[in-house]
Amino acid sequence: MPYPYNRLDAAGIEYIKSVTSPDRVAVGCDILPEYSHDEMPEYGVFPPDLYVEALNTGEVSAVMKYGYENNIPVVVRGAGSGLAGGATCKYAGILLSVVKMNRIYPVDRKNQTVTCEPGALLLDVQAAAAAEGLFYPPDPGEKTATIGGNVITNAGGMKAVRYGLTRDFVRCIQAVLPDGSVVEFSSNVVKNTTGYDVKDLVVGSEGTLCILTRVTLKLLPAPKFTCTLVMPFPDLEACADMVPKVLDLPFTPTAIEFLERELLEIVERTLNKPFPVPGGGAVLIVMYDASGREELETACDLACEAALEYGAIDCMIADTPERIASVWSVRGAILEGMKADSVGQEECDVVVPRSAIAEYVKAAKKIALAHGIRVQPCGHAGDGNIHTELLRDPGMSDEAWKSATHASLTELYALSKRLGGQLSGEHGIGNGRLEFLEPFLGERMIRLYKAIKLAFDEKLVLNPGKIVEFNTHN
Amino acid sequence: MPYPYNRLDAAGIEYIKSVTSPDRVAVGCDILPEYSHDEMPEYGVFPPDLYVEALNTGEVSAVMKYGYENNIPVVVRGAGSGLAGGATCKYAGILLSVVKMNRIYPVDRKNQTVTCEPGALLLDVQAAAAAEGLFYPPDPGEKTATIGGNVITNAGGMKAVRYGLTRDFVRCIQAVLPDGSVVEFSSNVVKNTTGYDVKDLVVGSEGTLCILTRVTLKLLPAPKFTCTLVMPFPDLEACADMVPKVLDLPFTPTAIEFLERELLEIVERTLNKPFPVPGGGAVLIVMYDASGREELETACDLACEAALEYGAIDCMIADTPERIASVWSVRGAILEGMKADSVGQEECDVVVPRSAIAEYVKAAKKIALAHGIRVQPCGHAGDGNIHTELLRDPGMSDEAWKSATHASLTELYALSKRLGGQLSGEHGIGNGRLEFLEPFLGERMIRLYKAIKLAFDEKLVLNPGKIVEFNTHN
Repeated sequence: MPYPYNRLDAAGIEYIKSVTSPDRVAVGCDILPEYSHDEMPEYGVFPPDLYVEALNTGEVSAVMKYGYENNIPVVVRGAGSGLAGGATCKYAGILLSVVKMNRIYPVDRKNQTVTCEPGALLLDVQAAAAAEGLFYPPDPGEKTATIGGNVITNAGGMKAVRYGLTRDFVRCIQAVLPDGSVVEFSSNVVKNTTGYDVKDLVVGSEGTLCILTRVTLKLLPAPKFTCTLVMPFPDLEACADMVPKVLDLPFTPTAIEFLERELLEIVERTLNKPFPVPGGGAVLIVMYDASGREELETACDLACEAALEYGAIDCMIADTPERIASVWSVRGAILEGMKADSVGQEECDVVVPRSAIAEYVKAAKKIALAHGIRVQPCGHAGDGNIHTELLRDPGMSDEAWKSATHASLTELYALSKRLGGQLSGEHGIGNGRLEFLEPFLGERMIRLYKAIKLAFDEKLVLNPGKIVEFNTHN
Repeated sequence: MPYPYNRLDAAGIEYIKSVTSPDRVAVGCDILPEYSHDEMPEYGVFPPDLYVEALNTGEVSAVMKYGYENNIPVVVRGAGSGLAGGATCKYAGILLSVVKMNRIYPVDRKNQTVTCEPGALLLDVQAAAAAEGLFYPPDPGEKTATIGGNVITNAGGMKAVRYGLTRDFVRCIQAVLPDGSVVEFSSNVVKNTTGYDVKDLVVGSEGTLCILTRVTLKLLPAPKFTCTLVMPFPDLEACADMVPKVLDLPFTPTAIEFLERELLEIVERTLNKPFPVPGGGAVLIVMYDASGREELETACDLACEAALEYGAIDCMIADTPERIASVWSVRGAILEGMKADSVGQEECDVVVPRSAIAEYVKAAKKIALAHGIRVQPCGHAGDGNIHTELLRDPGMSDEAWKSATHASLTELYALSKRLGGQLSGEHGIGNGRLEFLEPFLGERMIRLYKAIKLAFDEKLVLNPGKIVEFNTHN
């Protein structure tokens, strides 16, 4: 094991400048403080020794090779919008930004794909597809995240119910391995059994196995029609019980979200955003997309019928852009509302079998309450991914907050495991959830993870200390 | 590296009997000859030292652990329907059959999944889903293959265009690692970013990383309506050019197959199965599934219109079970027809970008012709996976056939690579395509593959010599 790593010296700094460009390199105090963390500084603030912006695969390879040969960690950063403390220089070293590698190549209409560099923003990729009448479905909340970050964390989002995750849209990847080699994982083909499926292993590997330098994404014909249904239910159980019933209908919904009324009231109170449908202890929001109008109408009618049959108080069909926006803008403001309603947040994004949503939510509230903190679960009912936001009230000491969240998270993860769930549905492990991973997966799986990490990065120079930690003296 | 492996001795045989059952163990000449190969004896006939049928995960673990501790290879076999020479005892040792582990657990309606043991047959899994009004879409030609074999080779089939591959339906896997440990990769959840995506790496790993002992599969609501369109085109180019146009339409087809007229004539001549639509040098067959009748009709109308606009001679809509069967029974008889029309076959199942289908087919014919053999490509136009069947005519010597096929395959794989394709779309590498893999992927990727293999199987006791070969004295 290479601990301790070498520190970058003056010669190293000059070398990095020589293989990139001096005006794209910063060292020491010239490095912006924000490059020491992602969106969750709680998961670690680690200043890099050097920050460099690469322009192309050749530069990425040269920087990585230098790190490999000199035993200096390299960490890649996109927009810094991660929520797991993944893109940080935990052991100092080089922070390699790909934000300037943001090219989007012309859409390949015949293969219905688009190829881009990792620094391209999700919203720009979506726009490039739309300009050709095509559609890139993955739709995580943060649209100014980079596409590289989306791929490397297998970003999810609300539309996963129908379309799947980022993984399902990755055709092929060009990557730089920790020794600096440039390789391709698959190509622009629809299926592939040519040896091990390294592509899918790399998707979601949080920048610990290789550096993504180019990705080709599958696109779909854009659906022409969309509609959103809002179904208030008397309580959470009835709301959660509706989810499998919706999925049993012949048309697959694009998104199924659930929100409890008290959460809607928080958004209303803190942000003055009223939710258009009154009543009910919990609300199910169901979105349908369709290529034909009849198909959409049939899908909505069947879902409304089923909702009313299974105890919904009402079923509001939002089919104009304004009405649709009035529903989703409240859903989109949830996190902001919770932030306005508390002085601190910690988040747990477990995923449980869809059949276990209600049980999880009820138990989660009890757990948090027992530790003296508020918890507000909400999220992706269609895929069982529950964002469980722990909220800090004013007056709680740092120490009390820290120990209450730690104890709550420990129990929440154990609860998810007991219900057949997983530790993280979308946000990943990074540094922030590292300590919870081994208790969750067990020693044998961690040993396998370490062996996989070493298969790619035997010198542990690429984003060390994330997902797996070899340094027992840490 | 553990070569040479140990041979199983009398004590070993007794031990295997003791952890399983003597009536499920065979040794030496009592082992059926068919257990020395899969559907492609051309890719190697390797008699095992011992054949054992396991009944449960505990037995699988015990046998594997014995192999691990005693340096004796273990190879898992399902129905033996593989086409890559994958499930064979290349270095002797134990052949572990999972055919008796064929339980299918009750369908989980709330989560829309079914859990089964690896020996369950594909057709039984499909039937179990159908009995609950649900649908397991992957549909490779061989319905009596085991579901374990389907998962471990990431089986494809015709319906991949709309629904994807076996991989896309695998929720989670229980597996035995080469050291005998029992582990779970993911759980019955829709999405998961809890560390490395080992599940997807295991899917398609051809039994070289771990032994699958249980799998949970995603199901879908069964589509209610189906329809098949037959579009004859003057020639292959026009036919292939139609593929992206079909995929650009708002409704995604379930399957898109292409067949050249001479292939239809072979089936007609050898099997007396007439194809219901005359004319044209090449035929595109397009299948649509739908939940609503209007949706299906719109999809068919749009596709027919587009076909006639882009040069189809005709567009026949088959919408009764009889007419649909008359089309697909000919498609299903292609391989049988080619077998009846030749005295030997070798097969290449490259996958190319959809935009390159016509170019590949034309060049493939030239390549085979130059080596004095007939070639008849056909297959999955919707995903660019072309089954290129090399046909041996009577009178060709063994040596001439061997050298001509080898030379043809070498050039066909190079052609696929040049067109941005891959070596295998469905059948995998196994033993049969091993020698072609390194020239295709390059030395660095093979080195990575070897490191991945070692991460799971550092003693190389599980299905050694498949996908990667460590024994340089072989």
